[in-house]
Amino acid sequence: MENGNGFKRWGFQKKQQDVTKAAILTPRLASYMLMDNLNRDDPRPVVSLGNGDPTLFQCFRTAAAAEDAVLDAFRSANYHSYSPPLGILPARRAIADHLNRDLPYKLSPDDVYVTIGCAQAITVTLEAIASPTANILLPRPGYLGYEAFAAHRQIEVRHYELLPEKGWDVDLDAVQVLADENTVAIVIINPGSPCGNVFSYEHLKKIAETARELGILVIADEVYGHISFGSTTFVPMGVFASIVPVLTLGSLSKRWTVPGWRLGWIAKNDPNGILKETGIVDSITTVLNVSCEPVTFIQGAIPQIIENTKEDFFMNIIGILREDADICYNGIKEIPCMSCPSKPEGGMFSMVKLDPSMLEGINDDLEFCIKLAREESVVVIPGVAVGMKDWLRVNFACEPASLQVGLERMKAFCRRHAKNKNEDPSEVIQTGNCSNTAGCPET
Amino acid sequence: MENGNGFKRWGFQKKQQDVTKAAILTPRLASYMLMDNLNRDDPRPVVSLGNGDPTLFQCFRTAAAAEDAVLDAFRSANYHSYSPPLGILPARRAIADHLNRDLPYKLSPDDVYVTIGCAQAITVTLEAIASPTANILLPRPGYLGYEAFAAHRQIEVRHYELLPEKGWDVDLDAVQVLADENTVAIVIINPGSPCGNVFSYEHLKKIAETARELGILVIADEVYGHISFGSTTFVPMGVFASIVPVLTLGSLSKRWTVPGWRLGWIAKNDPNGILKETGIVDSITTVLNVSCEPVTFIQGAIPQIIENTKEDFFMNIIGILREDADICYNGIKEIPCMSCPSKPEGGMFSMVKLDPSMLEGINDDLEFCIKLAREESVVVIPGVAVGMKDWLRVNFACEPASLQVGLERMKAFCRRHAKNKNEDPSEVIQTGNCSNTAGCPET
Repeated sequence: MENGNGFKRWGFQKKQQDVTKAAILTPRLASYMLMDNLNRDDPRPVVSLGNGDPTLFQCFRTAAAAEDAVLDAFRSANYHSYSPPLGILPARRAIADHLNRDLPYKLSPDDVYVTIGCAQAITVTLEAIASPTANILLPRPGYLGYEAFAAHRQIEVRHYELLPEKGWDVDLDAVQVLADENTVAIVIINPGSPCGNVFSYEHLKKIAETARELGILVIADEVYGHISFGSTTFVPMGVFASIVPVLTLGSLSKRWTVPGWRLGWIAKNDPNGILKETGIVDSITTVLNVSCEPVTFIQGAIPQIIENTKEDFFMNIIGILREDADICYNGIKEIPCMSCPSKPEGGMFSMVKLDPSMLEGINDDLEFCIKLAREESVVVIPGVAVGMKDWLRVNFACEPASLQVGLERMKAFCRRHAKNKNEDPSEVIQTGNCSNTAGCPET
Repeated sequence: MENGNGFKRWGFQKKQQDVTKAAILTPRLASYMLMDNLNRDDPRPVVSLGNGDPTLFQCFRTAAAAEDAVLDAFRSANYHSYSPPLGILPARRAIADHLNRDLPYKLSPDDVYVTIGCAQAITVTLEAIASPTANILLPRPGYLGYEAFAAHRQIEVRHYELLPEKGWDVDLDAVQVLADENTVAIVIINPGSPCGNVFSYEHLKKIAETARELGILVIADEVYGHISFGSTTFVPMGVFASIVPVLTLGSLSKRWTVPGWRLGWIAKNDPNGILKETGIVDSITTVLNVSCEPVTFIQGAIPQIIENTKEDFFMNIIGILREDADICYNGIKEIPCMSCPSKPEGGMFSMVKLDPSMLEGINDDLEFCIKLAREESVVVIPGVAVGMKDWLRVNFACEPASLQVGLERMKAFCRRHAKNKNEDPSEVIQTGNCSNTAGCPET
């Protein structure tokens, strides 16, 4: 760049490919993009069925015991100093004990690394296992935070399918075909994000056996761990760590509904010491030594948070989510251009199949979401942001009344854009049902 | 690896070079290593002159107004949700306003990115400007967190010298020689870490002019910004941003003495819009989009923290540090094998030259520090951990009495290990001065 002062060009000019290499549409970016598309003149409140952030709703406020724990740790002034790179010992011990309740062996504090939410657990783990030739297996649909980080670090990813017709189970035959000698790990997300499924004990065991056969480790993203409300009980992948080493990623964010506290962990489930032998443990430490740590006083609060949060709190949240899942599943059933392969049994999301061919002037999921945001002030994440074109990711972790309103607006939107309005048998009934003005079409 | 079950090798075995590539001895790692070398049987309290973490001392407790601000933000329950990738707007605005007090132009909230302490400000900035061919200029001595991260990301670094005989000014002639067409940035740390110097207005202007001539940007690490107590007033590098674009890195950690809150920032000082034009702004956003964010409620507290912390608080801290700098400088003068080129005028560290040839059985700074930790329960960072062999980095940000004890123990240690004990003229006087048993040699 010449600036006219006889000055040579700036040496820090970025090349186009450097800047755009990580431009993957994650749910977070999709959500911001949709928020920018809202119609500010719409007097109705925005209904966010986008991000998995239940803190927007009073009914999901975290346990008073958890808040008190943070206040106590803060006021003690014992935790204003730097944290060690792997986390403070009391936090590591408390998380280990917490996870041990469900395990057939015992984790020690050394098996736990405290991280900045599950987000840093993901980035540290990917970085620790990466090498220029390595590839990792990711689910589709999935959480595109993995893909975005992998693209940024130039880590090769390969996608295996989750099977909607089989309750979103892993297509294990495809995994066998996909993996090669450079595959280092398979990521599973259980309870499922974005599918709202919960893997059975038997299916998890099969995943472990497949991974062992392939010689790859399992990264078990359990950020929604224990958030299950259907017929399948949540089982941590660590239960199968004698078959295959498991790195479990978790956080307070979802179960305690405090994503803004940025407190997560990596747990090394590896009773046979394979991760140590293969250098993965040293590699995790190396990455953490050049990383940031979570806030010290929130780490200091962890033992109390875990000890003092009563089962009542969790049961209440689970109860709301179960009600939400019913509302969501039944609401979607009433919308002709949508279908939901199974009712969510866990997590906070449902995957909804969209049929754009039934809609006028809407060609795909992204266009659907942009127009829905603009016309109905409802934010839903397009399937492309979770790897599935012409699906939608609906966050049902809302105050139930708000979820109802959102679904009614979606129904009104679809009715208004339907190709063959007269052929829609539900139209008369739907209009009759619309007691909430927010759910009625504007015209 | 064969495990005897006819099982093929694990595919995630790390290669040795992958694991060790970032094994740089940073002050943090040095500090942990020295803590491991302490003699647990020594009944005396450990004196840490190692890490720059004044929170260990009651006299450095942060302002009550800052603590109240965090408590208010937390209790409001308005900040338990996810933060946007660049930080929440009120925090960005408050930091911009805070920095604007010292600038001849105005930063907008868009010019500020909120980060997880200054540590993340460093990693995000380095990553944003990096490319496979780029190199950056770093000071020696300096803060080896830069080197460790650069090594981890395989970013080429080149070192310019700070000149002890010129009050630790930048050797600008050497910078001219060092830079080439692939140099993208120069890092300066002002007030100096680890040298305790403060660059003058004129020197900063020369740095800016040199950088402009070379076509490189300036990364101004001002984590110790405004912590100056000598004859030179602290001037932010952003003052010269019309000459050359400046990325200023800062945090609450040092000035508010709360490193554990993990709240820092990157400020884009660039009235001519060069960083936008050259793609650096997009590159920072790209990196932040795949990074973690600071805790939301601490961000929410920023406006109140900045507004409500009174000048008294800062003046009190500055007063203690001034006293500490005097104690440190005078204490070092009394130790024959040590010298300090100039009295610290800012920051929290002093660089002390060590002459191992005057000591028996101690060959270098690292050995000195290990034996000092073991024999005297005093932790001081070896110069190698800041890039200067046979120097020491002494953190003087302690309760003054504790600093005195630490210096007395160092003196006793040096006396005990002196090669020519009888030639030490200060020995008799020193023993007579030793009123504190903690400062007396053990024998």
